[in-house]
Amino acid sequence: MTFPKPNEVTKVAVVGAGTIGASWAAWFLGRGLTVAVTDPLHGRDQFLHDYVAKAWPALVRIGAAREAEPAFDRLSFSPELEEVLDGASVVQENALERLDLKQSLLARIDAALPPDRLIASSTSGFKASELQQTMAHPERLVIGHPFNPPHLIPLVEVVGGEKTDPSAVAWAMEFYRAVGKHPIHVKKEVPAHISNRLQAALWREAVHLVAEGVGTVEDVDAAIAYGPGLRWALMGPHMIFHLAGGEGGMHHFLDHLGPPMESWWKSLGQPSLTPEVNEALVAGVEAEAGSRSMADLAAERDARLIALLDVLGLARDKA
Amino acid sequence: MTFPKPNEVTKVAVVGAGTIGASWAAWFLGRGLTVAVTDPLHGRDQFLHDYVAKAWPALVRIGAAREAEPAFDRLSFSPELEEVLDGASVVQENALERLDLKQSLLARIDAALPPDRLIASSTSGFKASELQQTMAHPERLVIGHPFNPPHLIPLVEVVGGEKTDPSAVAWAMEFYRAVGKHPIHVKKEVPAHISNRLQAALWREAVHLVAEGVGTVEDVDAAIAYGPGLRWALMGPHMIFHLAGGEGGMHHFLDHLGPPMESWWKSLGQPSLTPEVNEALVAGVEAEAGSRSMADLAAERDARLIALLDVLGLARDKA
Repeated sequence: MTFPKPNEVTKVAVVGAGTIGASWAAWFLGRGLTVAVTDPLHGRDQFLHDYVAKAWPALVRIGAAREAEPAFDRLSFSPELEEVLDGASVVQENALERLDLKQSLLARIDAALPPDRLIASSTSGFKASELQQTMAHPERLVIGHPFNPPHLIPLVEVVGGEKTDPSAVAWAMEFYRAVGKHPIHVKKEVPAHISNRLQAALWREAVHLVAEGVGTVEDVDAAIAYGPGLRWALMGPHMIFHLAGGEGGMHHFLDHLGPPMESWWKSLGQPSLTPEVNEALVAGVEAEAGSRSMADLAAERDARLIALLDVLGLARDKA
Repeated sequence: MTFPKPNEVTKVAVVGAGTIGASWAAWFLGRGLTVAVTDPLHGRDQFLHDYVAKAWPALVRIGAAREAEPAFDRLSFSPELEEVLDGASVVQENALERLDLKQSLLARIDAALPPDRLIASSTSGFKASELQQTMAHPERLVIGHPFNPPHLIPLVEVVGGEKTDPSAVAWAMEFYRAVGKHPIHVKKEVPAHISNRLQAALWREAVHLVAEGVGTVEDVDAAIAYGPGLRWALMGPHMIFHLAGGEGGMHHFLDHLGPPMESWWKSLGQPSLTPEVNEALVAGVEAEAGSRSMADLAAERDARLIALLDVLGLARDKA
């Protein structure tokens, strides 16, 4: 494929302007690109504008935005899909998670966009092989799965389907890197890609411990946020255990902690989300929230996340 | 039991001065307590002194130490166990993870210490019910399991055994809170308490994804550290999903993401630490480390952890 160079992209089309699409738009805009956004829903133009305005100070704080004020001159919106694709080197699709809807939307994008342009889907639940079935040029379709909110969390999971050209995957990796994200290549199509599988694995045991009365929801949460969660913001689980092995590293760790680890694996729970378990989870998070409203909690999370990204220098490292 | 008030403790005995014991000593010292440390091993006196000196600037930085210089005047060391117990309101035991050794050591502490004083074991692998079998006053034995390194990570898991008096658990919780830790009460004795079970659950899937070739060790690590790991430093997994539900919170989350989550649970892997898998893990972390030595990596982790604790204000919140 004769794509433009990934680090010379100047225009991106963002399809779907819900929270994920609007957040992607804010990020691309911060990184100096021209961004054209489309969404058929009434009012999404205003939502996008407000989202970008609200996100901007954080982008400046973490070193990801170049201008002090939102660069609205480089942001455009149209309800007409074909209009926003004109001149775009990359399309980032963020429609609702419904396969038929995504397939027909991607077929339309595919028909309107020159074949040497990348189409990336933000899907968390579908495989690239499913999404590309209706496309005439499926070789340029990848999954570019961000983590919410995309303008703050660096991770992007890139996955190709059966019909994806390996060069499209390589191009997408380079493009995301060039705009300051941290892309990883998911080498096999598995349910939920990598990161959500890891989240699901952790949460399964978290649900089990609540269901069995080993800890309250609040205590199980604290067991992460005041414990290993503090290290997982710094390094992944493999590297953490490599360091736990001291000078002998992972080798030493496996020699000494491999056997107990395997015995713990055997004792992990396999809960179901029964009505009783669900009720305990809802009551538990409400007790944990106390007098804090959802807005309070979200503001707390975002303020701490921005401070953390700032101190870790994640955006600046990539700029 | 007629314990002294938990917030009026002035002296703590630390039994075992390896990395865990020395780190506990640094924390207690930072919090203004008098600390008496014992270890039969030759050279542990010097190790302790060096550890505290090295840890101190971080304690000052995160707001946990009151004096600018290490308070060595309040720190004493003796190879004689009975000597350091004199006048201590709390004993924090950190011997090697060998049951027979811990049982005989705890029996000696139990015999020498007045029965209205708390004995806490840092054990990660044993149950309180196992440890208290050899004690004449088992009712004052709890597990007070820290996260490494105890002078930086706030979490302490408190677990009582079959013979533990509930008031000893309550006292321990209050004591750890008073000295600025974040204790949680683990209500049932299960292998590995709570936090290490959650770590084990996450790592099992992380190993599976490497073993199956879905991602490299480095990519799986990035899928945490550049993704959900950034949120787990702020809030636990239940609260994160409560917020992911928007205004409808956990209830909405379970309605919409409960079914896919359960289907992902079914697809999670059950790897074994075979020689081949172990080899892949070792090679993977070595590739990820690149030219960075173990010392480089540890320094990187610690510097980032201290910056993170500083910005999150975890120690100051509790001070």
